[in-house]
Amino acid sequence: MNQNRGVSRRKFMGGVATALTYVGMKPAIELVGAPAQRTARPAGYVKISNNENPYGPSEGVREAMTKAFEESHMYIGSNGIMNAIAEHHGLETNNILLGAGSTETLKTIDDAFLQGGGNIIGVEPTYETTYRYLTNTHAEGNIIPLTSDYRHDLHAMAHAVNFDTRFIYICNPNNPTGTIVSDADIKELLDSIPENMIVVIDEAYHHFVEDPAYSSAIKYVKEGRNVIVTRTFSKVYGIAGLRLGYGIAKLELISRMRPFNLGSINVIAKSAGVRALAEPETAARVIQLNNSIKKRVMGQLGDLGYEVIPSETNFFMVGIGRDIDPVRRAFRERNVEIGRRFPPMTEHLRISVGTETEMDRFMEVWNEVMGPADSQADGA
Amino acid sequence: MNQNRGVSRRKFMGGVATALTYVGMKPAIELVGAPAQRTARPAGYVKISNNENPYGPSEGVREAMTKAFEESHMYIGSNGIMNAIAEHHGLETNNILLGAGSTETLKTIDDAFLQGGGNIIGVEPTYETTYRYLTNTHAEGNIIPLTSDYRHDLHAMAHAVNFDTRFIYICNPNNPTGTIVSDADIKELLDSIPENMIVVIDEAYHHFVEDPAYSSAIKYVKEGRNVIVTRTFSKVYGIAGLRLGYGIAKLELISRMRPFNLGSINVIAKSAGVRALAEPETAARVIQLNNSIKKRVMGQLGDLGYEVIPSETNFFMVGIGRDIDPVRRAFRERNVEIGRRFPPMTEHLRISVGTETEMDRFMEVWNEVMGPADSQADGA
Repeated sequence: MNQNRGVSRRKFMGGVATALTYVGMKPAIELVGAPAQRTARPAGYVKISNNENPYGPSEGVREAMTKAFEESHMYIGSNGIMNAIAEHHGLETNNILLGAGSTETLKTIDDAFLQGGGNIIGVEPTYETTYRYLTNTHAEGNIIPLTSDYRHDLHAMAHAVNFDTRFIYICNPNNPTGTIVSDADIKELLDSIPENMIVVIDEAYHHFVEDPAYSSAIKYVKEGRNVIVTRTFSKVYGIAGLRLGYGIAKLELISRMRPFNLGSINVIAKSAGVRALAEPETAARVIQLNNSIKKRVMGQLGDLGYEVIPSETNFFMVGIGRDIDPVRRAFRERNVEIGRRFPPMTEHLRISVGTETEMDRFMEVWNEVMGPADSQADGA
Repeated sequence: MNQNRGVSRRKFMGGVATALTYVGMKPAIELVGAPAQRTARPAGYVKISNNENPYGPSEGVREAMTKAFEESHMYIGSNGIMNAIAEHHGLETNNILLGAGSTETLKTIDDAFLQGGGNIIGVEPTYETTYRYLTNTHAEGNIIPLTSDYRHDLHAMAHAVNFDTRFIYICNPNNPTGTIVSDADIKELLDSIPENMIVVIDEAYHHFVEDPAYSSAIKYVKEGRNVIVTRTFSKVYGIAGLRLGYGIAKLELISRMRPFNLGSINVIAKSAGVRALAEPETAARVIQLNNSIKKRVMGQLGDLGYEVIPSETNFFMVGIGRDIDPVRRAFRERNVEIGRRFPPMTEHLRISVGTETEMDRFMEVWNEVMGPADSQADGA
């Protein structure tokens, strides 16, 4: 159950590949609640590979960004973001550490807690940023496989804790599987491991979850536990390119992280974040659109006989029973970019949820690439 | 001459204080070559404490930023910035490492080359970011005093190199003194130290230099030497709040730095940077304005009998022959924010060059705070 091995050989794969390889093309933009200028893009091009919000920033967020131009020559501006985040969660500002996306927060966690090595416990596949920076400190990943239903095996993770373990990493919901760890399971884990063991819970996709068994782990921070929650403005708030995220933890942990944090956030991102938090209706609309479009497409693929992994996020995985690479290439040839490989799940495609129009095009290409619906329903 | 000591006790002073303590107030904005909306600010408030460009981004840069809103929901956009920087310097993109301001580049250099400790050689006072991150890796600063004319003592720096030295840091021109190291002296240093010793040359204020003895060290990168040059868009390009900078070095050094770099730059900053490089006339106008206003004010203070340190930057230091703190307070009470303490130069004020109007107000307050011109001319 428990496979111990270093992950340094994956230094330039995984997270780095996700972040750097999809350059230049633009998805359709349909603004939520606000008409605005569209960008030119190749006719019919659909990018549903990177779990991006396809709607972009709202009109209100654009106004806030434009206003921030007036502060763009100064080192400090819009620090209202700290208060806005703290108020949003009912926390103090000293429980918050800003980062350039949750990427920086995860890097900061590695740098702060893995000085001198040690190991962390996580699953595979999951969001690799935490693993990507391990080698900087010569730490190792203690990687636990997912369960047969593609979930975190919390018992195996708790069992894998050893004297060199610095923290446990849980992406909840998990990227790329879209699965969740229930609140009851999180609580059981926290109660079963050594009290001073740090648990990092990456809630990048938090907003999309509908399963009532799920709950944010921020309440465990409030209880004073050794839990660090990471959040991002990239997903539901639609400003991934602005690089804004944050960590939430008790002051003692934030203080250990702060010296390793850059503290260098773009003023336009900060202003956009303040405004985004003041527009819960925009987030609600993105969530509603995402979840209804996702269910329709997942239903269509299920009806065709494919294994669709239940998803609580803005993406989902579909099993095709064979290696995904030729299929990805066939989609790309038709100007539809879908998710990359997530070893060891090399027979599952990860599909990000785009706009209604983009997903119609995706299904068109699916039928073209994967063959007629009838034969699939029999054969898949 | 050569005082060896660790700087870890200054972890939360220096650079951190500069970056974090001047919150919220806005300077006058007079756009260069472009009329635009002004922000509200307390009447008469002047912030000439942080070496910020007082003119803000040009109309062209604002247009580029607005256009980038269309990419702000995506992870990758405007990577034209790498080509733009490389072309600007006649280098390859693999000689460039982007950072969130030169701050991130300097932190990356510390993280990459100080794993396991060692020491770096630098002067005092200088830009402290490099020292600020030393303690993360338990490295030490080997700090050399400035010469009596407030310049880097390159002979003492070369002499201080020992087996644990990982790199030499030179801020050129130097912040806060505004002094330069001549090109001949840089070359002599490079020729006298071990060939594999890394020299980091921070050229944040490069554009303002007029002294013909000065030259950028980028040519030494091109010669294949172990030189890393850092640059920023914060100063002459007026987008400090956007956090965009870069390091320039040979591929071998960039490759060692890259794993420690976040690689997470805001798309609006990248777009602004591309546009800024395409507008050399804006930079030229900022330089011309800065240098002419600077010379006038330095001349006025010199005429009053004060010691004004010759400056090749967008700030200058003036000696007042007594501790600066009461004077700084008196300026602050009159809504003029001037530079902080830079130990051990506790009797020199650092004045950033603001707009014409701001500097007129500064001189008004100077005369009010420092007493009548006549008595100073006699007494200083």
